[in-house]
Amino acid sequence: MKLTFSPASPFARKVRIAAIELGLIDKIELVPTTVAPAQSNDEYSRVTPVKKLPVLILDNGEVILDSYVIVEYLDELAGGGKLIPASGPARWKVKSDHSLLQGVLDSMLLCRYENMVRPAPLRWQAWADDHWSRAWNGMARFEKQADMLARPFDISHVALVCVLGYADFRFADCGWRKAYPKLDAFHEKMLARPSVKISLPPPA
Amino acid sequence: MKLTFSPASPFARKVRIAAIELGLIDKIELVPTTVAPAQSNDEYSRVTPVKKLPVLILDNGEVILDSYVIVEYLDELAGGGKLIPASGPARWKVKSDHSLLQGVLDSMLLCRYENMVRPAPLRWQAWADDHWSRAWNGMARFEKQADMLARPFDISHVALVCVLGYADFRFADCGWRKAYPKLDAFHEKMLARPSVKISLPPPA
Repeated sequence: MKLTFSPASPFARKVRIAAIELGLIDKIELVPTTVAPAQSNDEYSRVTPVKKLPVLILDNGEVILDSYVIVEYLDELAGGGKLIPASGPARWKVKSDHSLLQGVLDSMLLCRYENMVRPAPLRWQAWADDHWSRAWNGMARFEKQADMLARPFDISHVALVCVLGYADFRFADCGWRKAYPKLDAFHEKMLARPSVKISLPPPA
Repeated sequence: MKLTFSPASPFARKVRIAAIELGLIDKIELVPTTVAPAQSNDEYSRVTPVKKLPVLILDNGEVILDSYVIVEYLDELAGGGKLIPASGPARWKVKSDHSLLQGVLDSMLLCRYENMVRPAPLRWQAWADDHWSRAWNGMARFEKQADMLARPFDISHVALVCVLGYADFRFADCGWRKAYPKLDAFHEKMLARPSVKISLPPPA
Protein backbone atom coordinates (compact mmCIF):
# COMPACT_ATOMS: atom_id res chain seq x y z
CA MET A 1 0.00 0.00 0.00
CA LYS A 2 1.12 3.58 -0.59
CA LEU A 3 0.31 6.57 1.58
CA THR A 4 0.69 10.08 0.17
CA PHE A 5 2.62 11.84 2.86
CA SER A 6 4.20 15.02 4.11
CA PRO A 7 5.93 15.26 7.51
CA ALA A 8 4.27 18.67 7.95
CA SER A 9 0.71 17.34 7.57
CA PRO A 10 -1.02 16.58 10.87
CA PHE A 11 -3.53 14.40 9.01
CA ALA A 12 -0.74 12.29 7.48
CA ARG A 13 0.90 12.09 10.90
CA LYS A 14 -2.31 10.71 12.38
CA VAL A 15 -2.35 7.85 9.88
CA ARG A 16 1.37 7.19 10.35
CA ILE A 17 0.96 6.93 14.14
CA ALA A 18 -2.07 4.67 13.72
CA ALA A 19 -0.23 2.42 11.25
CA ILE A 20 2.71 2.06 13.66
CA GLU A 21 0.42 1.32 16.60
CA LEU A 22 -1.48 -1.26 14.54
CA GLY A 23 1.73 -2.99 13.41
CA LEU A 24 1.08 -2.17 9.76
CA ILE A 25 3.66 0.49 8.99
CA ASP A 26 5.99 -1.99 7.24
CA LYS A 27 3.27 -2.68 4.68
CA ILE A 28 2.96 0.98 3.75
CA GLU A 29 5.23 2.98 1.49
CA LEU A 30 5.20 6.69 2.36
CA VAL A 31 5.10 8.69 -0.88
CA PRO A 32 6.33 12.27 -0.40
CA THR A 33 3.66 14.64 -1.67
CA THR A 34 3.45 18.40 -1.59
CA VAL A 35 0.20 20.30 -1.73
CA ALA A 36 -0.11 24.01 -1.09
CA PRO A 37 -3.18 26.20 -1.23
CA ALA A 38 -3.55 28.45 -4.25
CA GLN A 39 -1.07 26.31 -6.19
CA SER A 40 -1.97 23.69 -8.73
CA ASN A 41 -0.68 20.12 -8.57
CA ASP A 42 -2.10 18.35 -11.59
CA GLU A 43 -0.46 15.04 -10.81
CA TYR A 44 -1.96 14.82 -7.32
CA SER A 45 -5.25 16.19 -8.58
CA ARG A 46 -5.55 13.04 -10.67
CA VAL A 47 -5.09 10.91 -7.54
CA THR A 48 -7.62 12.92 -5.52
CA PRO A 49 -9.30 15.99 -7.02
CA VAL A 50 -9.71 17.67 -3.63
CA LYS A 51 -5.90 17.42 -3.17
CA LYS A 52 -5.97 16.66 0.55
CA LEU A 53 -3.27 14.66 2.31
CA PRO A 54 -3.13 11.75 2.94
CA VAL A 55 -4.77 9.12 0.75
CA LEU A 56 -4.06 5.39 0.87
CA ILE A 57 -3.53 3.72 -2.49
CA LEU A 58 -4.16 -0.03 -2.33
CA ASP A 59 -2.20 -2.51 -4.42
CA ASN A 60 -5.23 -2.92 -6.70
CA GLY A 61 -5.26 0.84 -7.34
CA GLU A 62 -8.27 1.68 -5.18
CA VAL A 63 -7.87 4.97 -3.33
CA ILE A 64 -9.06 5.25 0.27
CA LEU A 65 -9.65 8.61 1.91
CA ASP A 66 -9.84 10.64 4.14
CA SER A 67 -7.38 10.20 7.03
CA TYR A 68 -10.09 8.89 9.34
CA VAL A 69 -11.43 6.35 6.87
CA ILE A 70 -7.85 5.18 6.27
CA VAL A 71 -7.46 4.59 10.02
CA GLU A 72 -10.75 2.68 10.07
CA TYR A 73 -9.52 0.57 7.16
CA LEU A 74 -6.18 -0.16 8.83
CA ASP A 75 -7.90 -0.90 12.13
CA GLU A 76 -10.06 -3.49 10.39
CA LEU A 77 -6.98 -4.96 8.65
CA ALA A 78 -5.42 -5.33 12.09
CA GLY A 79 -8.40 -7.28 13.40
CA GLY A 80 -10.81 -4.48 14.34
CA GLY A 81 -11.60 -2.63 17.54
CA LYS A 82 -7.98 -1.63 18.18
CA LEU A 83 -8.03 2.16 17.88
CA ILE A 84 -11.78 2.59 17.45
CA PRO A 85 -14.14 0.75 19.82
CA ALA A 86 -16.14 -1.78 17.82
CA SER A 87 -19.53 -1.04 19.40
CA GLY A 88 -21.49 0.65 22.15
CA PRO A 89 -21.49 4.18 23.53
CA ALA A 90 -17.65 4.22 23.65
CA ARG A 91 -17.64 3.94 19.86
CA TRP A 92 -19.68 7.11 19.39
CA LYS A 93 -17.76 9.00 22.08
CA VAL A 94 -14.42 8.19 20.46
CA LYS A 95 -15.70 8.99 16.97
CA SER A 96 -17.21 12.30 18.12
CA ASP A 97 -14.07 13.27 20.04
CA HIS A 98 -12.07 12.50 16.92
CA SER A 99 -14.39 14.59 14.73
CA LEU A 100 -14.10 17.52 17.09
CA LEU A 101 -10.30 17.31 16.94
CA GLN A 102 -10.49 17.04 13.16
CA GLY A 103 -12.43 20.33 13.22
CA VAL A 104 -9.75 21.82 15.47
CA LEU A 105 -7.09 20.83 12.94
CA ASP A 106 -9.14 22.25 10.06
CA SER A 107 -9.36 25.58 11.88
CA MET A 108 -5.64 25.56 12.72
CA LEU A 109 -4.75 24.99 9.07
CA LEU A 110 -7.07 27.82 8.00
CA CYS A 111 -5.31 30.07 10.55
CA ARG A 112 -1.95 29.09 9.16
CA TYR A 113 -3.04 29.78 5.59
CA GLU A 114 -4.54 33.11 6.61
CA ASN A 115 -1.65 34.36 8.73
CA MET A 116 1.35 32.86 7.01
CA VAL A 117 0.52 31.87 3.43
CA ARG A 118 -1.99 34.45 2.14
CA PRO A 119 -0.44 37.68 0.84
CA ALA A 120 -0.27 40.03 3.82
CA PRO A 121 -2.52 42.80 2.40
CA LEU A 122 -5.33 40.28 1.89
CA ARG A 123 -5.55 38.96 5.44
CA TRP A 124 -8.82 39.17 7.33
CA GLN A 125 -8.20 39.37 11.04
CA ALA A 126 -11.75 38.47 12.08
CA TRP A 127 -11.56 35.22 10.08
CA ALA A 128 -8.25 34.20 11.64
CA ASP A 129 -9.45 35.17 15.12
CA ASP A 130 -12.63 33.14 14.70
CA HIS A 131 -10.77 30.03 13.57
CA TRP A 132 -8.13 30.38 16.25
CA SER A 133 -10.85 30.67 18.86
CA ARG A 134 -12.45 27.47 17.54
CA ALA A 135 -9.13 25.66 17.85
CA TRP A 136 -8.35 27.14 21.26
CA ASN A 137 -11.82 26.37 22.65
CA GLY A 138 -11.52 22.87 21.22
CA MET A 139 -8.32 22.29 23.20
CA ALA A 140 -10.04 23.69 26.31
CA ARG A 141 -12.78 21.10 25.90
CA PHE A 142 -10.26 18.27 26.31
CA GLU A 143 -8.31 20.00 29.10
CA LYS A 144 -11.50 19.62 31.13
CA GLN A 145 -12.08 15.94 30.22
CA ALA A 146 -9.96 13.93 32.64
CA ASP A 147 -11.77 10.72 31.62
CA MET A 148 -10.94 11.21 27.94
CA LEU A 149 -7.26 11.86 28.68
CA ALA A 150 -7.01 8.78 30.93
CA ARG A 151 -8.92 6.14 28.97
CA PRO A 152 -7.11 3.42 26.98
CA PHE A 153 -5.30 4.68 23.88
CA ASP A 154 -7.57 5.28 20.89
CA ILE A 155 -7.78 7.31 17.68
CA SER A 156 -8.97 10.43 19.49
CA HIS A 157 -5.70 10.44 21.47
CA VAL A 158 -3.80 10.17 18.21
CA ALA A 159 -5.74 13.16 16.89
CA LEU A 160 -5.08 15.14 20.08
CA VAL A 161 -1.35 14.43 19.81
CA CYS A 162 -1.47 15.71 16.22
CA VAL A 163 -3.28 18.88 17.30
CA LEU A 164 -0.72 19.63 20.01
CA GLY A 165 2.23 18.79 17.77
CA TYR A 166 0.83 21.05 15.08
CA ALA A 167 0.42 23.84 17.65
CA ASP A 168 4.13 23.51 18.48
CA PHE A 169 5.04 23.33 14.80
CA ARG A 170 3.09 26.29 13.43
CA PHE A 171 2.01 28.32 16.48
CA ALA A 172 5.02 27.93 18.75
CA ASP A 173 4.18 31.03 20.78
CA CYS A 174 0.51 30.28 21.40
CA GLY A 175 1.13 29.19 24.98
CA TRP A 176 -1.01 26.05 25.01
CA ARG A 177 1.20 24.33 27.63
CA LYS A 178 0.67 27.12 30.13
CA ALA A 179 -3.04 27.45 29.41
CA TYR A 180 -3.67 23.71 29.36
CA PRO A 181 -1.42 21.92 31.89
CA LYS A 182 -3.38 18.67 31.67
CA LEU A 183 -2.89 18.56 27.92
CA ASP A 184 0.81 19.22 28.52
CA ALA A 185 1.02 16.24 30.89
CA PHE A 186 -0.93 14.11 28.39
CA HIS A 187 1.44 15.13 25.57
CA GLU A 188 4.50 14.27 27.66
CA LYS A 189 3.05 10.86 28.44
CA MET A 190 2.28 10.25 24.76
CA LEU A 191 5.88 11.06 23.79
CA ALA A 192 6.89 7.80 25.46
CA ARG A 193 5.30 6.04 22.49
CA PRO A 194 7.79 5.52 19.65
CA SER A 195 4.98 6.16 17.12
CA VAL A 196 4.42 9.64 18.55
CA LYS A 197 8.07 10.51 18.99
CA ILE A 198 9.26 9.41 15.55
CA SER A 199 6.47 11.32 13.81
CA LEU A 200 7.02 14.73 15.44
CA PRO A 201 6.85 17.45 12.76
CA PRO A 202 10.19 18.77 11.50
CA PRO A 203 11.58 22.07 12.82
CA ALA A 204 9.32 24.83 11.47
CA MET B 1 -32.80 13.71 19.72
CA LYS B 2 -32.03 17.24 18.53
CA LEU B 3 -30.16 18.20 15.39
CA THR B 4 -28.65 21.67 15.05
CA PHE B 5 -29.83 22.74 11.65
CA SER B 6 -29.83 25.38 8.95
CA PRO B 7 -31.63 24.89 5.61
CA ALA B 8 -28.62 26.51 3.92
CA SER B 9 -26.08 23.97 5.26
CA PRO B 10 -25.32 21.11 2.86
CA PHE B 11 -23.95 19.07 5.77
CA ALA B 12 -27.18 19.47 7.73
CA ARG B 13 -29.12 18.60 4.58
CA LYS B 14 -27.16 15.36 4.26
CA VAL B 15 -28.18 14.27 7.74
CA ARG B 16 -31.78 15.31 7.15
CA ILE B 17 -32.01 13.26 3.96
CA ALA B 18 -30.38 10.28 5.68
CA ALA B 19 -32.77 10.52 8.64
CA ILE B 20 -35.79 10.58 6.31
CA GLU B 21 -34.48 7.65 4.29
CA LEU B 22 -33.82 5.68 7.48
CA GLY B 23 -37.31 6.38 8.87
CA LEU B 24 -35.92 8.30 11.85
CA ILE B 25 -36.82 11.90 11.04
CA ASP B 26 -39.81 11.87 13.41
CA LYS B 27 -37.48 11.18 16.34
CA ILE B 28 -35.35 14.24 15.57
CA GLU B 29 -36.15 17.84 16.45
CA LEU B 30 -34.45 20.26 14.05
CA VAL B 31 -33.03 23.15 16.08
CA PRO B 32 -32.46 26.27 13.92
CA THR B 33 -28.85 27.37 14.34
CA THR B 34 -26.89 30.12 12.64
CA VAL B 35 -23.13 30.07 12.31
CA ALA B 36 -21.17 32.47 10.15
CA PRO B 37 -17.43 32.74 9.68
CA ALA B 38 -15.69 35.63 11.43
CA GLN B 39 -18.64 36.01 13.80
CA SER B 40 -18.81 34.70 17.31
CA ASN B 41 -21.64 32.52 18.58
CA ASP B 42 -20.88 31.81 22.22
CA GLU B 43 -23.98 29.72 22.79
CA TYR B 44 -23.19 27.31 19.95
CA SER B 45 -19.52 27.36 20.86
CA ARG B 46 -20.51 25.74 24.14
CA VAL B 47 -22.29 22.95 22.23
CA THR B 48 -19.37 22.40 19.86
CA PRO B 49 -16.26 24.58 20.03
CA VAL B 50 -15.52 24.20 16.31
CA LYS B 51 -19.00 25.59 15.56
CA LYS B 52 -19.76 23.37 12.60
CA LEU B 53 -23.27 22.34 11.59
CA PRO B 54 -24.85 19.92 12.30
CA VAL B 55 -24.41 18.09 15.59
CA LEU B 56 -26.82 15.54 17.04
CA ILE B 57 -27.68 15.98 20.71
CA LEU B 58 -28.92 12.76 22.29
CA ASP B 59 -31.56 12.69 25.00
CA ASN B 60 -28.84 11.96 27.58
CA GLY B 61 -26.97 15.11 26.51
CA GLU B 62 -24.20 13.35 24.57
CA VAL B 63 -23.21 15.23 21.42
CA ILE B 64 -22.45 13.32 18.23
CA LEU B 65 -20.51 14.87 15.36
CA ASP B 66 -19.64 15.36 12.53
CA SER B 67 -22.34 14.93 9.84
CA TYR B 68 -20.86 11.63 8.67
CA VAL B 69 -20.63 10.14 12.15
CA ILE B 70 -24.22 11.21 12.76
CA VAL B 71 -25.28 9.30 9.64
CA GLU B 72 -23.33 6.25 10.83
CA TYR B 73 -25.07 6.51 14.19
CA LEU B 74 -28.52 6.80 12.63
CA ASP B 75 -27.75 3.97 10.22
CA GLU B 76 -26.89 1.74 13.18
CA LEU B 77 -30.08 2.84 14.99
CA ALA B 78 -32.03 1.79 11.90
CA GLY B 79 -30.49 -1.67 11.94
CA GLY B 80 -27.17 -1.11 10.18
CA GLY B 81 -25.98 -1.48 6.61
CA LYS B 82 -28.75 0.71 5.18
CA LEU B 83 -26.88 3.73 3.76
CA ILE B 84 -23.35 2.45 4.41
CA PRO B 85 -22.45 -1.10 3.40
CA ALA B 86 -21.66 -3.12 6.54
CA SER B 87 -18.54 -4.85 5.20
CA GLY B 88 -16.33 -5.67 2.26
CA PRO B 89 -14.85 -3.59 -0.55
CA ALA B 90 -18.18 -1.79 -1.12
CA ARG B 91 -17.88 -0.34 2.39
CA TRP B 92 -14.53 1.32 1.64
CA LYS B 93 -15.63 2.48 -1.79
CA VAL B 94 -18.74 4.18 -0.41
CA LYS B 95 -16.83 5.71 2.50
CA SER B 96 -14.09 7.02 0.20
CA ASP B 97 -16.59 8.40 -2.31
CA HIS B 98 -18.33 10.13 0.58
CA SER B 99 -15.05 11.57 1.88
CA LEU B 100 -14.19 12.91 -1.54
CA LEU B 101 -17.58 14.62 -1.77
CA GLN B 102 -17.11 15.98 1.74
CA GLY B 103 -13.88 17.54 0.47
CA VAL B 104 -15.76 18.97 -2.50
CA LEU B 105 -18.25 20.59 -0.12
CA ASP B 106 -15.45 21.95 2.06
CA SER B 107 -13.90 23.59 -0.99
CA MET B 108 -17.24 24.97 -2.17
CA LEU B 109 -17.85 26.56 1.22
CA LEU B 110 -14.37 28.08 1.19
CA CYS B 111 -15.15 29.52 -2.26
CA ARG B 112 -18.36 30.99 -0.98
CA TYR B 113 -16.65 32.57 2.03
CA GLU B 114 -13.89 33.94 -0.19
CA ASN B 115 -16.07 35.33 -2.95
CA MET B 116 -19.21 36.37 -1.12
CA VAL B 117 -18.52 36.79 2.61
CA ARG B 118 -14.94 38.11 2.92
CA PRO B 119 -14.63 41.91 2.48
CA ALA B 120 -14.01 42.48 -1.23
CA PRO B 121 -10.57 44.15 -0.92
CA LEU B 122 -9.24 41.11 0.97
CA ARG B 123 -10.10 38.45 -1.60
CA TRP B 124 -7.36 36.23 -3.00
CA GLN B 125 -8.26 35.04 -6.46
CA ALA B 126 -5.70 32.20 -6.56
CA TRP B 127 -7.17 30.69 -3.38
CA ALA B 128 -10.72 30.81 -4.70
CA ASP B 129 -9.63 29.46 -8.09
CA ASP B 130 -7.78 26.58 -6.45
CA HIS B 131 -10.74 25.58 -4.30
CA TRP B 132 -13.20 25.92 -7.15
CA SER B 133 -10.99 23.72 -9.27
CA ARG B 134 -10.97 21.09 -6.51
CA ALA B 135 -14.75 21.15 -6.38
CA TRP B 136 -15.14 21.16 -10.16
CA ASN B 137 -12.65 18.29 -10.64
CA GLY B 138 -14.39 16.40 -7.87
CA MET B 139 -17.68 16.62 -9.77
CA ALA B 140 -15.89 15.50 -12.94
CA ARG B 141 -14.69 12.40 -11.10
CA PHE B 142 -18.28 11.27 -10.54
CA GLU B 143 -19.49 12.28 -14.01
CA LYS B 144 -17.13 9.57 -15.27
CA GLN B 145 -18.25 6.90 -12.78
CA ALA B 146 -21.34 5.30 -14.28
CA ASP B 147 -21.17 2.45 -11.76
CA MET B 148 -21.23 4.84 -8.81
CA LEU B 149 -24.21 6.75 -10.19
CA ALA B 150 -26.15 3.54 -10.88
CA ARG B 151 -25.52 1.47 -7.74
CA PRO B 152 -28.16 1.14 -4.99
CA PHE B 153 -28.77 4.32 -2.99
CA ASP B 154 -26.14 4.99 -0.31
CA ILE B 155 -24.64 7.86 1.67
CA SER B 156 -22.33 8.89 -1.17
CA HIS B 157 -25.40 9.57 -3.33
CA VAL B 158 -26.81 11.71 -0.53
CA ALA B 159 -23.54 13.63 -0.43
CA LEU B 160 -23.54 14.06 -4.22
CA VAL B 161 -27.10 15.42 -4.10
CA CYS B 162 -25.96 17.90 -1.46
CA VAL B 163 -23.01 18.99 -3.60
CA LEU B 164 -25.22 19.59 -6.64
CA GLY B 165 -27.92 21.33 -4.61
CA TYR B 166 -25.29 23.58 -3.06
CA ALA B 167 -23.93 24.39 -6.52
CA ASP B 168 -27.42 25.52 -7.56
CA PHE B 169 -27.86 27.44 -4.31
CA ARG B 170 -24.58 29.37 -4.16
CA PHE B 171 -23.04 29.07 -7.64
CA ALA B 172 -26.13 29.21 -9.84
CA ASP B 173 -24.16 30.28 -12.91
CA CYS B 174 -21.39 27.69 -12.70
CA GLY B 175 -22.89 25.59 -15.49
CA TRP B 176 -22.50 22.15 -13.89
CA ARG B 177 -25.56 20.75 -15.71
CA LYS B 178 -24.08 21.53 -19.11
CA ALA B 179 -20.59 20.33 -18.18
CA TYR B 180 -21.81 17.20 -16.42
CA PRO B 181 -24.91 15.79 -18.14
CA LYS B 182 -24.73 12.48 -16.29
CA LEU B 183 -24.76 14.27 -12.96
CA ASP B 184 -27.74 16.26 -14.22
CA ALA B 185 -29.62 13.06 -15.04
CA PHE B 186 -28.64 11.61 -11.65
CA HIS B 187 -29.89 14.74 -9.88
CA GLU B 188 -33.20 14.63 -11.74
CA LYS B 189 -33.64 10.99 -10.75
CA MET B 190 -32.84 11.77 -7.12
CA LEU B 191 -35.47 14.53 -7.03
CA ALA B 192 -38.11 11.79 -7.21
CA ARG B 193 -37.20 10.99 -3.59
CA PRO B 194 -39.29 13.02 -1.14
CA SER B 195 -36.23 13.29 1.16
CA VAL B 196 -34.27 15.05 -1.56
CA LYS B 197 -37.09 17.26 -2.77
CA ILE B 198 -38.24 18.49 0.65
CA SER B 199 -34.68 19.39 1.68
CA LEU B 200 -33.77 21.54 -1.33
CA PRO B 201 -31.99 24.70 -0.14
CA PRO B 202 -34.13 27.84 0.01
CA PRO B 203 -33.95 30.45 -2.76
CA ALA B 204 -30.49 32.08 -2.50
